[in-house]
Amino acid sequence: MKCRVCREPAVLDIRRHNAAFCRDHFVKHCAEQVRRAIKDHDMIGAGERVVVAVSGGKDSLALWDLLVDLGYRPDGLYLGLGIGEYSEASGHAARAFAQDRGLKLHEVDLATDFGYDIPRAAAATHRAPCGACGLSKRHLFNAVAVEHGYDVVATGHNLDDEAAVLLGNVLRWETGYLGRQHPVLPATPGFARKVKPLYRLGERETAAYCVLRGLDYQVEECPMAEGNRHLGFKEVLDGLEDRSPGAKAAFVFGFVDRAHEYFTDDAGEEREGLRQCVVCGSPTTSGVCAFCRLRERVGTRAEHSQ
Amino acid sequence: MKCRVCREPAVLDIRRHNAAFCRDHFVKHCAEQVRRAIKDHDMIGAGERVVVAVSGGKDSLALWDLLVDLGYRPDGLYLGLGIGEYSEASGHAARAFAQDRGLKLHEVDLATDFGYDIPRAAAATHRAPCGACGLSKRHLFNAVAVEHGYDVVATGHNLDDEAAVLLGNVLRWETGYLGRQHPVLPATPGFARKVKPLYRLGERETAAYCVLRGLDYQVEECPMAEGNRHLGFKEVLDGLEDRSPGAKAAFVFGFVDRAHEYFTDDAGEEREGLRQCVVCGSPTTSGVCAFCRLRERVGTRAEHSQ
Repeated sequence: MKCRVCREPAVLDIRRHNAAFCRDHFVKHCAEQVRRAIKDHDMIGAGERVVVAVSGGKDSLALWDLLVDLGYRPDGLYLGLGIGEYSEASGHAARAFAQDRGLKLHEVDLATDFGYDIPRAAAATHRAPCGACGLSKRHLFNAVAVEHGYDVVATGHNLDDEAAVLLGNVLRWETGYLGRQHPVLPATPGFARKVKPLYRLGERETAAYCVLRGLDYQVEECPMAEGNRHLGFKEVLDGLEDRSPGAKAAFVFGFVDRAHEYFTDDAGEEREGLRQCVVCGSPTTSGVCAFCRLRERVGTRAEHSQ
Repeated sequence: MKCRVCREPAVLDIRRHNAAFCRDHFVKHCAEQVRRAIKDHDMIGAGERVVVAVSGGKDSLALWDLLVDLGYRPDGLYLGLGIGEYSEASGHAARAFAQDRGLKLHEVDLATDFGYDIPRAAAATHRAPCGACGLSKRHLFNAVAVEHGYDVVATGHNLDDEAAVLLGNVLRWETGYLGRQHPVLPATPGFARKVKPLYRLGERETAAYCVLRGLDYQVEECPMAEGNRHLGFKEVLDGLEDRSPGAKAAFVFGFVDRAHEYFTDDAGEEREGLRQCVVCGSPTTSGVCAFCRLRERVGTRAEHSQ
């Protein structure tokens, strides 16, 4: 197996590209995919300020590293979820990465700053923890970005993540969600732009990138995500990819290139119905935003309302 | 397990309906699903002539039986594919069904009438046989309907078939195919209306219907379809249905109700580009239609062109 570029021994093959790469050219391949994602979708304009949502896992550390490498000066934002040892190790990886490189890392801790953590939210809502976790992340990544004047929030969603979410949305024809699923969600009043520069790289590629670059990431998967339906969709898609290499990329890129546009009106209609949350002032389609409703359910809104 | 309707012992449960039925109420359930499909989509107008595409398998015989039961007087159309014993048994089942009930069955035989069969077409095109088979069926079902003045061609596509085709179309975002995938394809110049009255019934239900009604159908699956990618998609969907009963129905019905409309322009654009095949006169987007091109490849067009 030889590198497609230099014919030296390869360290990794990527079946969907029908190509293998040596260490250096694999790292370049990753940077090229991210550069292309940013360029194709105008993710980051000249001089814009970027904050990376950093979990300490392979995707977010690879993203932060790649954005630095491509010449952006992104800061990081770590959100403490309070999921026992998993969160401790994740926070440690994020802090160590930032410290080693002299990068700025914002930290928000759910327990300290908002009086709840994800296990407590899951217990209070009697629902899968991933719902409360995703809601908390979306709200706080945006709130911190707006508060500190960042133009762009970059998240580490990779090709596998996007394919799994897309499959879930398509299986139920969630047309509003389909209209909002895109590598770029434009800025709107109260919302910073959201971008996913890794959407062209599979999770096997982001993991290999971290290993080859010597990035010390949190290897464990979140213990609370077990049984999550997106993990089931990932298995389904892995099976399809096995039979037909490139299936995931065709699914996600085909959607982005040819189908997403059909659904944008549905997302637009929801956006037009936005007003301010009466508790925290965030944009919301109802009187009280979902984040403040979550805090009310876990019983911490009164003490901590902003 | 008791019948949802009469509380007598049930013979079948349907997890996605969270219901079980006795023999009589299961048969009524099937008829009701077909009645509803026809009504919701204006499949068959008063006095319109219907021809059922009959393979001799469970779906097409159940469909023919149900349409008779609902008061239509549909004729049948059997297409001899020349797939050895499989085709012989299929033809026998179709003929026996028609004869027992005094129904009219048209027959077209690929070998006798057009000088090729599916194994020969597959060998000549060096492709999977299902492509040539589907193409031959689409062309000849329509040609016979137009020739004999039928308003409607009814096919036995069930919920599992529709879900598998939809998944294949969505995975590659075949927007033109998505625009044409619907329980009803309206009549256009040169094309009879195509309807799928079984799209609300799963294949487990059509098989049970045949058994409970004593219909003698061809039980074997087509031996040439093995490894067909739609069978792979059916497996994937069975896995999703297992985990989440109702997943297939939500996928197909959600598409029909909320998403199909987004893609109709793509299908419309193709329709506007239609002209007459220079060989057989059928509507086509190119000079020679796909059916005549297939016949040319299998070397039988000169002797048999119409």
